[in-house]
Amino acid sequence: MKIGLLGCGRIGRVHARSVGQLDSVAIAAVADTSAASAQELAGETDAQVMSAAALIASPEVDAVLIGTPTNTHYDLIHAACKARKAIFCEKPIDMSADRIRDCVWAVEDAGVPFMTAFNRRFDPNFSQIQSRITRGEIGSVEIVTILSRDPAPPSLEYIATSGGLFRDMMIHDLDMARFLLGEEPTSVFAVGSSLVDPEIGNAGDIDTGAVTLTTATGKICQISNSRRATYGYDQRIEVHGSKDMLRAENVLENTVEMASASGFRKAPAQHFFWSATRPPTALGWRILPKPSQAVRNRLPISTMDYGLKC
Amino acid sequence: MKIGLLGCGRIGRVHARSVGQLDSVAIAAVADTSAASAQELAGETDAQVMSAAALIASPEVDAVLIGTPTNTHYDLIHAACKARKAIFCEKPIDMSADRIRDCVWAVEDAGVPFMTAFNRRFDPNFSQIQSRITRGEIGSVEIVTILSRDPAPPSLEYIATSGGLFRDMMIHDLDMARFLLGEEPTSVFAVGSSLVDPEIGNAGDIDTGAVTLTTATGKICQISNSRRATYGYDQRIEVHGSKDMLRAENVLENTVEMASASGFRKAPAQHFFWSATRPPTALGWRILPKPSQAVRNRLPISTMDYGLKC
Amino acid sequence: MKIGLLGCGRIGRVHARSVGQLDSVAIAAVADTSAASAQELAGETDAQVMSAAALIASPEVDAVLIGTPTNTHYDLIHAACKARKAIFCEKPIDMSADRIRDCVWAVEDAGVPFMTAFNRRFDPNFSQIQSRITRGEIGSVEIVTILSRDPAPPSLEYIATSGGLFRDMMIHDLDMARFLLGEEPTSVFAVGSSLVDPEIGNAGDIDTGAVTLTTATGKICQISNSRRATYGYDQRIEVHGSKDMLRAENVLENTVEMASASGFRKAPAQHFFWSATRPPTALGWRILPKPSQAVRNRLPISTMDYGLKC
Amino acid sequence: MKIGLLGCGRIGRVHARSVGQLDSVAIAAVADTSAASAQELAGETDAQVMSAAALIASPEVDAVLIGTPTNTHYDLIHAACKARKAIFCEKPIDMSADRIRDCVWAVEDAGVPFMTAFNRRFDPNFSQIQSRITRGEIGSVEIVTILSRDPAPPSLEYIATSGGLFRDMMIHDLDMARFLLGEEPTSVFAVGSSLVDPEIGNAGDIDTGAVTLTTATGKICQISNSRRATYGYDQRIEVHGSKDMLRAENVLENTVEMASASGFRKAPAQHFFWSATRPPTALGWRILPKPSQAVRNRLPISTMDYGLKC
Repeated sequence: MKIGLLGCGRIGRVHARSVGQLDSVAIAAVADTSAASAQELAGETDAQVMSAAALIASPEVDAVLIGTPTNTHYDLIHAACKARKAIFCEKPIDMSADRIRDCVWAVEDAGVPFMTAFNRRFDPNFSQIQSRITRGEIGSVEIVTILSRDPAPPSLEYIATSGGLFRDMMIHDLDMARFLLGEEPTSVFAVGSSLVDPEIGNAGDIDTGAVTLTTATGKICQISNSRRATYGYDQRIEVHGSKDMLRAENVLENTVEMASASGFRKAPAQHFFWSATRPPTALGWRILPKPSQAVRNRLPISTMDYGLKC
Repeated sequence: MKIGLLGCGRIGRVHARSVGQLDSVAIAAVADTSAASAQELAGETDAQVMSAAALIASPEVDAVLIGTPTNTHYDLIHAACKARKAIFCEKPIDMSADRIRDCVWAVEDAGVPFMTAFNRRFDPNFSQIQSRITRGEIGSVEIVTILSRDPAPPSLEYIATSGGLFRDMMIHDLDMARFLLGEEPTSVFAVGSSLVDPEIGNAGDIDTGAVTLTTATGKICQISNSRRATYGYDQRIEVHGSKDMLRAENVLENTVEMASASGFRKAPAQHFFWSATRPPTALGWRILPKPSQAVRNRLPISTMDYGLKC
Repeated sequence: MKIGLLGCGRIGRVHARSVGQLDSVAIAAVADTSAASAQELAGETDAQVMSAAALIASPEVDAVLIGTPTNTHYDLIHAACKARKAIFCEKPIDMSADRIRDCVWAVEDAGVPFMTAFNRRFDPNFSQIQSRITRGEIGSVEIVTILSRDPAPPSLEYIATSGGLFRDMMIHDLDMARFLLGEEPTSVFAVGSSLVDPEIGNAGDIDTGAVTLTTATGKICQISNSRRATYGYDQRIEVHGSKDMLRAENVLENTVEMASASGFRKAPAQHFFWSATRPPTALGWRILPKPSQAVRNRLPISTMDYGLKC
Repeated sequence: MKIGLLGCGRIGRVHARSVGQLDSVAIAAVADTSAASAQELAGETDAQVMSAAALIASPEVDAVLIGTPTNTHYDLIHAACKARKAIFCEKPIDMSADRIRDCVWAVEDAGVPFMTAFNRRFDPNFSQIQSRITRGEIGSVEIVTILSRDPAPPSLEYIATSGGLFRDMMIHDLDMARFLLGEEPTSVFAVGSSLVDPEIGNAGDIDTGAVTLTTATGKICQISNSRRATYGYDQRIEVHGSKDMLRAENVLENTVEMASASGFRKAPAQHFFWSATRPPTALGWRILPKPSQAVRNRLPISTMDYGLKC
């Protein structure tokens, strides 16, 4: 399968590297508003440089991978739908839930495969928790607890266009909640503070947040986020079921432990999700089939709605 | 110091055993509406059986330990205040926040030492977390996460008079939140479900609950409770600070680990807070000094207010 | 049962405290060459001070607990046998294997219960490993690994009369090996070094040692000892079986873990075997029945023989 | 750098895959007595098929990678020395210590780089232990403990030509001992049993073994091996130093933990050293410089001498 990569920035390069490790997929074309960035990534991937419009139209391209700024996603998705290309689009799809729904209808009408960048579902630890829940190992889900902290906040420039902590960071945890609860949330409560860096608060965003979700049958999910953790990229999930409990700890940098008068010390958590020592498949992606009517019915309670009340 | 023990039921006996392990304190008198219970515990502790009124009035008694049903606490506290005795009273002090405030004013006016049964502050793991926070080891507190599950729900008879999950069980976690946040909560959000046993729901209570607290400076605390955990008495706390993070895990029944084709298996958590293998000092208590004016000012936001909105 | 305690030094006091926590046993009499030590412990235990001979002869004494210096054990055991008292004797029983066998024959002829101070068999973790082996959980035992380190070496005065590392310290590990192997060792290999403190080497002892035992059916046990560990009292055992593996880790001082840029740090191991937070029953003891003929046949390969070849 | 690969069997294919992940190295030619095996691997690596002699002589080949049966290593090493090629040779180099020394002198005389397959030095956990020892973090090394178990024994055919447990399996642990002790062993004690499979004993080999090494300054190393572990590929190392202690645990298959009435269960250890989820660099290799005179002087105590006395 031939991929057209839209956006050759940081995340575009991450995807290009992931694609490069798969046998059956290749980057055929790249596009970026910066000719230099496009040229550089084209050189590394043996791809052609094109304009976005030409790339989407090209018969050489089976699927588009959208890694451009969020405010361009809407138009690119619609264009790709018209060109009947399979679509992978980075998160968040858009800042507006209404516009996201528009994208969903466009995808449905076009009947093209569509997937967004909820890579954490492919994390080997989290996906194992989900499959063990599905196999009934812990009975029915009652409480989901998600602790998620980034090593350090992004730049203030990034913060300004990120859509805020809920859309940019907690979006992954909200997706995990949907992945693990097995039911759509029916109520959302959110609080947030600026504790890590007052400049983030001055920019109108928060850097520390907490959400509680409940479902129609009374399942509860608590999520907390911080933009800063001194000890690495901290991603932990715990699911309390009617029979037993499952939890996933962080992968540490190594398994060495030192014993001294101050106790037993292990390594910090691996530093970020594209750490070289994480298996590259953790960042992999696959083309999902056309969304079913059932999915369409669920969509008015979009992931994007969460966090708007804080 | 001579103790008068009011109430010779389950919790009264636990306290009698704790007192028996201290050198400088002894049970001088016991009282219970069941003469047989009073007689039995008197025999074990070499104490006299008295009526509650006589016990409170007795010059042989320096302090009263109130372990009677909740609806008797109010009158016993007021009587002990009049008799100028030091008071230890089980939690919850009363079902009504107003009546609890009355008790506080009575204690203040009498100028007697008063303490309630927040034993978890004396748990060696949790008290260490608090003292390390106080020493500044993790900077300022940002997020407190408390996961608390009982091994099994109490009887429906107990549920009926317990005051509900928030007053009976989460009260300890709310106290931990105050202990660790270093600031009074200014907002409380609570949700609850009956997932463990529908009979608990039918009785008007919940068995699964979650609370979010925030403080004036933006600190956040998330608590979740379940009345059932197959793997023991589960009490974990984690504090994310501006510099570092501290967490306390459960004490397991032993340190043995078995390795087999299904992986590495450790023992369950110790089963309950009066487990024989926990150091008895974890249940110890001490007489606190007269509450200061500052404490009095804080009291309108009583621990008892929490959870009333669920 | 009434106990006569011979020896009121450090270990005698440890035993007195353990006896004090048992309901059915009491110290009736104490003896020590230091009248002051005897008087002090007698005061604490409500016991009479006697001479050793009078204590052993006393009809008030059912059993003697020998906690005197090693070179007095032989005579006291023989005297107690003549007086038909049950005997508990501290380790090592004697410095000479021949004299230990003499003691065993005396005990056998007298038909009195006898027990020596291998307290580690009553450690809740190690005893659980042994009982799970006995229940067949890991199949047949193949490799036993014992890592044992003291926090710090004893004084040079103690070293001078201790009998050396193998008789004084590793004796417990050799007993654990017999406890867990389920077969008598048939070969012993030992090496030792003085690495911790050259003065220990100058005194003719070692402070670092390693032993390999094998049994008739080919089971293997490796033991290593050091007189120094910065991180607490370190006692770990691992048993590799034909089906699965069991291991016991140290009990740490608490369960608190700190996460920082240098990683995840837990507390040191509890500092010594009479740590206040260890359950006192771990130091408990019980009177064993008269040794059977089978035991007598095994005795020529006494625990005391080990380590003599280093 | 262009590699000539001698031997296209299991281990040859593992090396070909490792080379394929390095940017600066490529397989230029392959040789195998099985034309089909050579052809298949040549196809996958875009390499030429050659005879061993032609490959060694080819100007297209800078270095040879010897993955053929052990009894061919001697001649291939000598041929490569004559052709002045850099050499990587699988372990064991030969069954005879004398013949290994011959190889070493040939390498020295030719002045070519030479390396053997002690891949565990490149394991991220073990290499970190060694570098932290070198940095002085734990003071001087006193006791090294190595526990090493394979998931299951190899086939009896393999056993027959393997050279036995010490040369085939424990050779890696003996290398780790040299890597970590920082001194050459001066005494070796070994025991072995056939406990896993009596057929291994009938074939003249052992499947369970233990070794004790000591050095001139009194450092001690204990190693134990089993050919079977139900819980994965088990490789643990612990180094007790004069200041502190370092240990490396196994990498587990994932970080998920399940809590149930039977306790807390984690995943088994990763199953084998070429597991897909281990970072490929763990199997990487590099060309070492010509051995110095100091190394030459150490060589009479060859790794190959170990274990010959069992």
